[in-house]
Amino acid sequence: MAVITKVSPLAPKAFPDLPVVKGVQFATAAAGVKYEGRTDVLLAVADAGSTVAGVFTKSATRSAPVLDCQEKIAVSSEAGAAILVNSGNANAFTGKFGFASVGAITNAVSAITNTPTERVFTSSTGVIGEPLPHDRVIAVVDELHSNLSEHGLKDAAHAIMTTDTYAKGASAVVETPAGRVNIAGIAKGSGMIAPDMATMLVYIFTDAKIDQTVLQQMISSITDQTFNCITVDSDTSTSDTLLAVATGASGIVITEKDQEFYAGLNSVMLELAHLVVRDGEGATKFVEINVVGADNDEDAKTHAMAIANSPLIKTAIAGEDPNWGRVVMAIGKSGAAADRDRLSISFGNILVAKDGWVADGYREDDGATYMQNDHIVINVDVGLGEGKSTAWTCDLTHGYIEINADYRS
Amino acid sequence: MAVITKVSPLAPKAFPDLPVVKGVQFATAAAGVKYEGRTDVLLAVADAGSTVAGVFTKSATRSAPVLDCQEKIAVSSEAGAAILVNSGNANAFTGKFGFASVGAITNAVSAITNTPTERVFTSSTGVIGEPLPHDRVIAVVDELHSNLSEHGLKDAAHAIMTTDTYAKGASAVVETPAGRVNIAGIAKGSGMIAPDMATMLVYIFTDAKIDQTVLQQMISSITDQTFNCITVDSDTSTSDTLLAVATGASGIVITEKDQEFYAGLNSVMLELAHLVVRDGEGATKFVEINVVGADNDEDAKTHAMAIANSPLIKTAIAGEDPNWGRVVMAIGKSGAAADRDRLSISFGNILVAKDGWVADGYREDDGATYMQNDHIVINVDVGLGEGKSTAWTCDLTHGYIEINADYRS
Repeated sequence: MAVITKVSPLAPKAFPDLPVVKGVQFATAAAGVKYEGRTDVLLAVADAGSTVAGVFTKSATRSAPVLDCQEKIAVSSEAGAAILVNSGNANAFTGKFGFASVGAITNAVSAITNTPTERVFTSSTGVIGEPLPHDRVIAVVDELHSNLSEHGLKDAAHAIMTTDTYAKGASAVVETPAGRVNIAGIAKGSGMIAPDMATMLVYIFTDAKIDQTVLQQMISSITDQTFNCITVDSDTSTSDTLLAVATGASGIVITEKDQEFYAGLNSVMLELAHLVVRDGEGATKFVEINVVGADNDEDAKTHAMAIANSPLIKTAIAGEDPNWGRVVMAIGKSGAAADRDRLSISFGNILVAKDGWVADGYREDDGATYMQNDHIVINVDVGLGEGKSTAWTCDLTHGYIEINADYRS
Repeated sequence: MAVITKVSPLAPKAFPDLPVVKGVQFATAAAGVKYEGRTDVLLAVADAGSTVAGVFTKSATRSAPVLDCQEKIAVSSEAGAAILVNSGNANAFTGKFGFASVGAITNAVSAITNTPTERVFTSSTGVIGEPLPHDRVIAVVDELHSNLSEHGLKDAAHAIMTTDTYAKGASAVVETPAGRVNIAGIAKGSGMIAPDMATMLVYIFTDAKIDQTVLQQMISSITDQTFNCITVDSDTSTSDTLLAVATGASGIVITEKDQEFYAGLNSVMLELAHLVVRDGEGATKFVEINVVGADNDEDAKTHAMAIANSPLIKTAIAGEDPNWGRVVMAIGKSGAAADRDRLSISFGNILVAKDGWVADGYREDDGATYMQNDHIVINVDVGLGEGKSTAWTCDLTHGYIEINADYRS
């Protein structure tokens, strides 16, 4: 198996300072599920009164932990909540053994943290189709419980990594009329080396007091504009999971009308989504695709994702080729409404195509110079209506092939 | 621009012997549209009484020649018909100039061949967004007309190539109760070097006498099971065109009930479709995906194409990795119905996964040995119903990235 230790060239310079979110504590441990010499299990325990909401993969072959979380997520409870995550094994396509592992881990966490089993959420990320050695996880539950700390979120971001090249965190501090609320989140995803592990996990914590249904509506709505608008390679994981916990420890009540909080939560989720793209397998360019002028927002998203998933566009970007003909192609194939003669396309501020033809005054040299940037913006005006959408992706390089083909498992 | 001259390792050993199809003649010429020192224009002229049917790209940004063909294809006429094809320039996304070029070429061909303009079909394949220098094409029309020959189909297969690594032809001789009917076809597609040219063109000729509506139904139905079931990289061309011409010169009438003829036509179209996949950019493996047991045929095709288009599966095949977890992933993401615990997956005859778990007795070494073949068969039983479908694709290799990224246009 190829071991690639180089950090993504698109990685941020450092892990950010995350604010402490009162009402939730974290601990990590090295259980040896698969990896040696690093932490691979995370326990998060939230105080009584916390609400928990979640968004999960739509895959028809989703993993046992995902199915278990989905059953539990809307349970109404005043009790505390716990989240246990292991890396190294996805517990996916593991038949009835998968549920047995989830049950065993849930029972152990429930007992030590005094949390009802229906409030214990688990996630697993790693290889598909191998039984999870859950005894190794259970063996560190005592140790995890002893080490819980409200300062543990940075370590948590490291423990959930599989083949990510850097740990991912983001936060927002929201000033509401009633006072200050903190939001902090971590994510893993788009690992390099072992492509079976192309799973995305996201955990977000806030000390705001929010009704479960309101929190669920907020993260569902924001997920649609953030995580559901990113793609590395169009392949959807069996294990994608986002869990959001509102502890209420700040005493500040947030409702669906609190625009500042929504904006803060949106900024955290968007930043985490971008961090996943920046760690895309083999990525050397971060690509933003803005589509306006579609018949409706859904059509705009269809166009944007067709562009973001096109291997021909992604390889052109890798080659720093301002190949707008391929953007025309992707819009044409997407299935959403388009009129060739109303389309216009810009790379950054450079208008390259307009009204079904190359733009007046466009010079290939200008396009080529622009494509040397490591943040590429493709703007498309479909010219039909008011629909708009933005998607984010990375380029498709030899690095992707190396990671996914040049090894024998 | 990278120039790759190596012939695909999946190419057939030689161009096949094609039977003469009475009632249609061919000529090629070197017009210098873009390429130097090779033929790049094809003229085919069919006798009066011929029927013509066609299938075209569904792209919303399709090229001027495609739009023109679509308008003409169902015109009922007893007159002859002509097809003119140029390579080197796709005449796509060329605004109003695109239609002007089609009109100019159509008029020139109509005049010299004495064919009504509504029976002159044109195709263009090559770079997108550059005006077609149609004067160069018109300059060779006299020469083409002088050189028409019923033996010209092999040369025709060469003239329509862009960056294909070999010429593609297939034929069938059908023995009907009334006598022998010939079918011969050529195709181009999945060129290497200049990915703007990832266009597929197919021309099929038969001396059978077939009603236009019957011929149209036959090729539409067969296209759905052949060309619409292949994929190299999931990117759809603006110019894909299939034209079928029945000259009637054999005097043998074929109706929708002639199963032998349908089977012969199917074999020609399937062979041409496979030849396109075998010339897929960077391909080193030919991959057949058989899905059975889906809820219905449409779901089966959705699963099969999700597998065929998955970059993670295609890179695994390139790496000779029997990574069945990725097949589970692709079925899960496809959107068609699936039940994780009823799925079974085989590589060739090797059962790798069954009932939501790795198959009893499966040995990774057996899978790995199988993956060294250059013809890989993936069999999936969804375990739900009677729906079935087959798709064909190739692997995703460094060659694809080299062709599409490692150059500046």
